[in-house]
Amino acid sequence: MTFEITILGCGAATPTSRHNPTSQVVNIHDKLYLVDCGEATQMQLRKYKVRFQKINHVFISHLHGDHYLGLMGLISSMNLLGRKSILHIFSPNGLKELIELNLRLSHTFLEYTLEYHSSETDTKMLIMEDRSVKVYSIPLKHRIDCFGFVFEEKIRPPKIRKEVISKYKLQPSEVLELKKGNSIVSKGGESVSFSEASIAPPLPRSYAYCSDTCYYEKVIDMIAGSTMLYHESTFLDDMKERAKSTFHSTARQAAEIAAKANVGTLILGHFSSRYHEDDSFLAEAAEVFGNVILADEGKIIQVANTENAPDT
Amino acid sequence: MTFEITILGCGAATPTSRHNPTSQVVNIHDKLYLVDCGEATQMQLRKYKVRFQKINHVFISHLHGDHYLGLMGLISSMNLLGRKSILHIFSPNGLKELIELNLRLSHTFLEYTLEYHSSETDTKMLIMEDRSVKVYSIPLKHRIDCFGFVFEEKIRPPKIRKEVISKYKLQPSEVLELKKGNSIVSKGGESVSFSEASIAPPLPRSYAYCSDTCYYEKVIDMIAGSTMLYHESTFLDDMKERAKSTFHSTARQAAEIAAKANVGTLILGHFSSRYHEDDSFLAEAAEVFGNVILADEGKIIQVANTENAPDT
Repeated sequence: MTFEITILGCGAATPTSRHNPTSQVVNIHDKLYLVDCGEATQMQLRKYKVRFQKINHVFISHLHGDHYLGLMGLISSMNLLGRKSILHIFSPNGLKELIELNLRLSHTFLEYTLEYHSSETDTKMLIMEDRSVKVYSIPLKHRIDCFGFVFEEKIRPPKIRKEVISKYKLQPSEVLELKKGNSIVSKGGESVSFSEASIAPPLPRSYAYCSDTCYYEKVIDMIAGSTMLYHESTFLDDMKERAKSTFHSTARQAAEIAAKANVGTLILGHFSSRYHEDDSFLAEAAEVFGNVILADEGKIIQVANTENAPDT
Repeated sequence: MTFEITILGCGAATPTSRHNPTSQVVNIHDKLYLVDCGEATQMQLRKYKVRFQKINHVFISHLHGDHYLGLMGLISSMNLLGRKSILHIFSPNGLKELIELNLRLSHTFLEYTLEYHSSETDTKMLIMEDRSVKVYSIPLKHRIDCFGFVFEEKIRPPKIRKEVISKYKLQPSEVLELKKGNSIVSKGGESVSFSEASIAPPLPRSYAYCSDTCYYEKVIDMIAGSTMLYHESTFLDDMKERAKSTFHSTARQAAEIAAKANVGTLILGHFSSRYHEDDSFLAEAAEVFGNVILADEGKIIQVANTENAPDT
């Protein structure tokens, strides 16, 4: 089952010729969740051939322009291209007022519904749930209210072995009972244990998104054991004072959070426009944590359980 | 002296892989005027190496997103990159409220001043003047209030021939008098006529910008004799009913306006995303008007007086 991240933008506040402002698409079981929506996100969606009408949920971490300025254009294009289904927007308070002012000034009447949900919280909070995933909002520490998101794949029911079904001539109701984790006595009077009959489902995977934030240890418990973590690294560690004063992180700090939270893989992103290459971020983080990937526009990253992933 | 247009975006409401939303830079005597500012304008400015801190005046035609959604990001990047000088924004009323809400929600305090000017008018109105240019707002006819702009280069004073200055040993005060268009008697007692002494300056040039609008004959007088006209052509003429109902123009209609206004050259732009090539726009307009250019991202168009330009 699909669980992958497409990076649409991984630059910081000022876009450059190398990096767009922040946005990414999380694909879980072929449902698309948009996380942040910096300027030109709709162009990036088109460039990387993401079918953006399939996005039904948008998560905005905070109201700095490089994380939301592309949303109004996306909302408008979705409308012009015939959207009818609800678009759910999870964000800090205030975004609704801004979107509605845009709609009013442009005399735009949407043919579909925007449903607004607050992501404001001071602890890990479930904000969305569907058949495949639970999404939590988590508080980060930035210059303004800012929230990360944790996507947790739901545990899927075990499959029942075909050979067991034929051996005991199991009825659908008996298979269902086994799927619930129970052992049964079949109509033929034979005991069929759950462990004999079932194939264990893969471990559920999870993805934690932490941008923008200073080095913030309180987040560790909230993202502990994630299969994958995206953590901002606006600066390298020789600028950690600048990182502190602007409430951002360095690559080393991101790696320290990844290590302490025992995540599987760390993705670095939100690179400041002052840097002209990203390999230094990778090298710095790799000194602290083994499994590091650099974000880059158009990169698709598979969220897969690795040896490093905790066995929980 | 420079007078040129750099096209940053010439698509219609929905950006495509071929065309960005509307924006262009008008360079007059090395001063940069930004006309409309669709999403991702700041990326386009960077891509085409326009020094965007040199922009001191922004003109927004109307408050449909494809003409203004890039402004907030540009304002923010100008601030982050150290701008101190005033940015003048000419637009329909309402934009100030939107910008200020963005600034408030993102807790952004600009280090420079935004000065807002209304472009709303029901007749041709002078809205900006500096040493080189006069800028007028003109009413267009669109679904919401929409205004075009006319940039008129100022007539430059004539130059005085060097050989005349040495022949009559003219003093600076005498040269100044000649530059005013007067004839003089030199200190040596010799008559020096203005016509003998002066080199006529080039004809002043003008650029009219008309996007978005339906076919609107009232505009003709207001742009008459322009050296160059940008006129929207969202559709081809077989969709003129659609053009009418959405208050847009066809390529043929744009050419009819150009012909009736006796402009020098017509630039077509604001192409609907339904078209996959633009040559049909050129062909259709060329049946009505001789001098047609297609807008395209990154194209730099010189505003030069041509044989077709009226001798006024």
